[in-house]
Amino acid sequence: VAERRRSWWGWGYEDAALGDEELRAMGSLLAERMGLTGSVLPAPRVADLRIGRPRLRPPAALEQLVSDDPEDRARHAHGQSYLDVLRCLEGRLERFPDLVAHPRSESELQAVLEWCSSVGAAVIPFGGGTSVVGGVDPAVGDGFAGVVTIDLAAMGRVLEVDERSLAARIQAGALGPSLEAQLRPFGLTLRHFPQSFECSSLGGWIATRAGGHFATGPTHIDDLVEALRVVTPRGVIETRRLPASGAGPQPERLFLGSEGVLGVVTEAWVRVRRRPRWRAGGTVRFASFEVGAGAIRALVQAGIQPANCRLIDPLEAQLNGVGDGTTAVAIIAFESAEHPLDAEAVRARECLRDHGGVPEGEWRSSSEEGQGGGAALAWRRSFLRAPYLRDGLMRLGVLCDTFETAVVWDRFEALHARATQAVRDALDGFGARGATVTCRFTHVYPDGPAPYFTVIAPAAVGRAEEQWRAMKQAASNAVLAEGGTITHHHAVGRDHRPWYDRERPPLFAEALRAAKRVLDPAGVLNPGVLLDAARGELE
Amino acid sequence: VAERRRSWWGWGYEDAALGDEELRAMGSLLAERMGLTGSVLPAPRVADLRIGRPRLRPPAALEQLVSDDPEDRARHAHGQSYLDVLRCLEGRLERFPDLVAHPRSESELQAVLEWCSSVGAAVIPFGGGTSVVGGVDPAVGDGFAGVVTIDLAAMGRVLEVDERSLAARIQAGALGPSLEAQLRPFGLTLRHFPQSFECSSLGGWIATRAGGHFATGPTHIDDLVEALRVVTPRGVIETRRLPASGAGPQPERLFLGSEGVLGVVTEAWVRVRRRPRWRAGGTVRFASFEVGAGAIRALVQAGIQPANCRLIDPLEAQLNGVGDGTTAVAIIAFESAEHPLDAEAVRARECLRDHGGVPEGEWRSSSEEGQGGGAALAWRRSFLRAPYLRDGLMRLGVLCDTFETAVVWDRFEALHARATQAVRDALDGFGARGATVTCRFTHVYPDGPAPYFTVIAPAAVGRAEEQWRAMKQAASNAVLAEGGTITHHHAVGRDHRPWYDRERPPLFAEALRAAKRVLDPAGVLNPGVLLDAARGELE
Repeated sequence: VAERRRSWWGWGYEDAALGDEELRAMGSLLAERMGLTGSVLPAPRVADLRIGRPRLRPPAALEQLVSDDPEDRARHAHGQSYLDVLRCLEGRLERFPDLVAHPRSESELQAVLEWCSSVGAAVIPFGGGTSVVGGVDPAVGDGFAGVVTIDLAAMGRVLEVDERSLAARIQAGALGPSLEAQLRPFGLTLRHFPQSFECSSLGGWIATRAGGHFATGPTHIDDLVEALRVVTPRGVIETRRLPASGAGPQPERLFLGSEGVLGVVTEAWVRVRRRPRWRAGGTVRFASFEVGAGAIRALVQAGIQPANCRLIDPLEAQLNGVGDGTTAVAIIAFESAEHPLDAEAVRARECLRDHGGVPEGEWRSSSEEGQGGGAALAWRRSFLRAPYLRDGLMRLGVLCDTFETAVVWDRFEALHARATQAVRDALDGFGARGATVTCRFTHVYPDGPAPYFTVIAPAAVGRAEEQWRAMKQAASNAVLAEGGTITHHHAVGRDHRPWYDRERPPLFAEALRAAKRVLDPAGVLNPGVLLDAARGELE
Repeated sequence: VAERRRSWWGWGYEDAALGDEELRAMGSLLAERMGLTGSVLPAPRVADLRIGRPRLRPPAALEQLVSDDPEDRARHAHGQSYLDVLRCLEGRLERFPDLVAHPRSESELQAVLEWCSSVGAAVIPFGGGTSVVGGVDPAVGDGFAGVVTIDLAAMGRVLEVDERSLAARIQAGALGPSLEAQLRPFGLTLRHFPQSFECSSLGGWIATRAGGHFATGPTHIDDLVEALRVVTPRGVIETRRLPASGAGPQPERLFLGSEGVLGVVTEAWVRVRRRPRWRAGGTVRFASFEVGAGAIRALVQAGIQPANCRLIDPLEAQLNGVGDGTTAVAIIAFESAEHPLDAEAVRARECLRDHGGVPEGEWRSSSEEGQGGGAALAWRRSFLRAPYLRDGLMRLGVLCDTFETAVVWDRFEALHARATQAVRDALDGFGARGATVTCRFTHVYPDGPAPYFTVIAPAAVGRAEEQWRAMKQAASNAVLAEGGTITHHHAVGRDHRPWYDRERPPLFAEALRAAKRVLDPAGVLNPGVLLDAARGELE
């Protein structure tokens, strides 16, 4: 079987991208409605890039691990943010790592870190390269001798499975599908399915506190990590495998969300579970998003925890083919490896109906692979296909991006209104009237939802980056002003830094900086992410 | 109504302690069985203590807040560990804080911290004083100008309730019962009921990562904290109220478990819930603790999450009056504010029966205040009464202590066997044959239980402290050797330091120390707890 080829610039696998013919058809459909030119930007080629010579040469001992191949450097020059893909499409990708390291073991990784520390080269840990916040961009400023990106792909194995405790020791470079494939023979699953699942890695999830499959209850990867191994320039940190502990501040929590600035996560013991066999659920329609939000709030505050609990506003439901645009739609699903779920499903159905919802169908528990009915299936397909569609829309000249947050229920409505209006106003300034701004809940907690906004508008010709920056700034300012966080699960990277800095207590930032100086004395790890680049002493 | 008087040396309120007559009766019952002398140690008196003059004098601006009253100093000279109470009973309490500060506001607290930093006085934050690990003992070494204990009792109000988001802003000094009493008019409850509930504080729970009421699912106070305010010598840290976030390492997590070494928690937004109205559950008997452990493992790994899920070994069940000593007993209870719990109860009952359990009664859901039957009620009474009983037993010359841990299922049986044997062997060395060592699960997770051991033996006359140290060391070594943590919810304090240091990754310790230097440059906050006392620069 031929290995599938990853796109060097856009989402996922080349064979799954929208084809030119499909794009032209879509373009002519959208041309009138969105005021597009109808032309299709060509897929960019590595050969058209101006990639300078690397500023660094690896020592002989590392030559085997380190590549300066232009395509390798181009593939590692960006993540998958709107801006990343825009720069590729517009031929404006300008910064490249000087070298890409491909360690196959912790000791090889350690050797790379030591060399980079000694020569003052910035180090960018790279898992699946799916950051949408500039987390892997080699934009480290001028203070470094060069940039070495460390790709963890060669460290992707499930090393150990403890079937009694339902936990597995897994290398950080494992991408979602490979990780699940290795667990499947044991009848186990991690069940962590961010939208990036196809191309993102366990280490990336840990470094960015990824939000997962479960819409309620413990859902961040944080809650699935039992123990960690992290390689730092000062040596290895290994935490103890424990179901829980009250011994001091939890060490894993310093590295969960550390985004590569404190060390490179190399493996983790994670909590796995048996593959679900029973499912139940269905869809509920609401007169408006606000009514739906109230009902979902009642549901989670009643202690009901569906695995899936997405509330989609009327317009987004229509665009995804799960509604006709007149009603908000909630997709609810329970799952269990052990028992039928009729009691849970009935309880959820009744609770949502009591709060203004109109449930569809019977919600009977089934042991089939179905996901609770037609609307849920349609939505799921659209969810996994979205990143490919985004790239296609961009080639047609469409601004297509998302932003997300979490906020307490008491402030949700104000945040929703203000963020939506702020984005509209910002896009109006670029003449993009009729921009589509939609919202859904990806995760819900008893004290608040995680609203996820999608923005679609004609890109301003010749000013697409400027337009995006105006939109992003307006959205982020609105989110912060109304009490939200700059990110529920997309991370901080370089793009969210200004707002992260406002959200983060200044003395905590100082403490974090002090921890970094201990673990990364030369200041080479992912400079500019979370903290300002600050070169320390060379070793 | 006259205010109830707290015991200055032992647990809780004077009017609830075991009376002399009750003790004598108990003593004659136990005398033969345990080889006790039958005499009753008198309750110690403050007047008999040799309390030296304070080494510090507060500046005029702080005189109103600060006390050098001998009884105040004696009350703040210890926690509630076996060793603390033993020293009081034996008249060997020797170290006292020089002063006790009683701030009524953050600004008063800040003024105390600044003064202590400027003169190099050690600061010990004090909530309810229920530490069982030396967390509030003024044993700070010789490097300080004196010791100032800061009692948070005057900061104990519920300041704000967000009924929509089910969250409340509460001052750290609130003790359990007062906190619940202030939430009750709203129909809300924090539902965090550690065994110390009657006398411990919200701030203490946060600083020590207390384990709470719920035996399954998110149960540590960590999971209930939405946001924190912490006063440090460098200023105030306030985190943002968020249901969840993925923005960098979670700031609250640096302070959860910080045990007063980084700052003083002054208030928190915590997640509350509606008071439960429905309950269901009952008891299950098992042929042995091992069979019960297997069944409880199956239960939690099936995703079933009872609020209460205690597995008690045969001997402890007998001592607590919930069994006859021939079977292990599991007490299972579900609770909900919203709906009957028959489905959950039936599912749990069947799961436990499938794995060798013999359930008692029908487990019908009820809206009564009952807790699921006679055995459960008997156990609950005994649970809340235990600290008073402990003090009584100590006055009769009984060694009576507990230790606890958490461990993955795969290593539980080995840990249980080794810890039990190690304690027996250590006590045998002091001639205390026939020591009682029992075990129960206080909390259970899909990847492992939190076993809680109780040790009862005749105290070695004249060598009680030495005997306890031998027991503690043997138990702790066994727990660490078999993969457990030195504490699931009792914290580290000064007593668990040697084992905490072995459990904690050394580079994490360095990072923590660096964070402390940022927040507490003079090194005055709770020296010796979590980290070695290290005086920094005076301000």
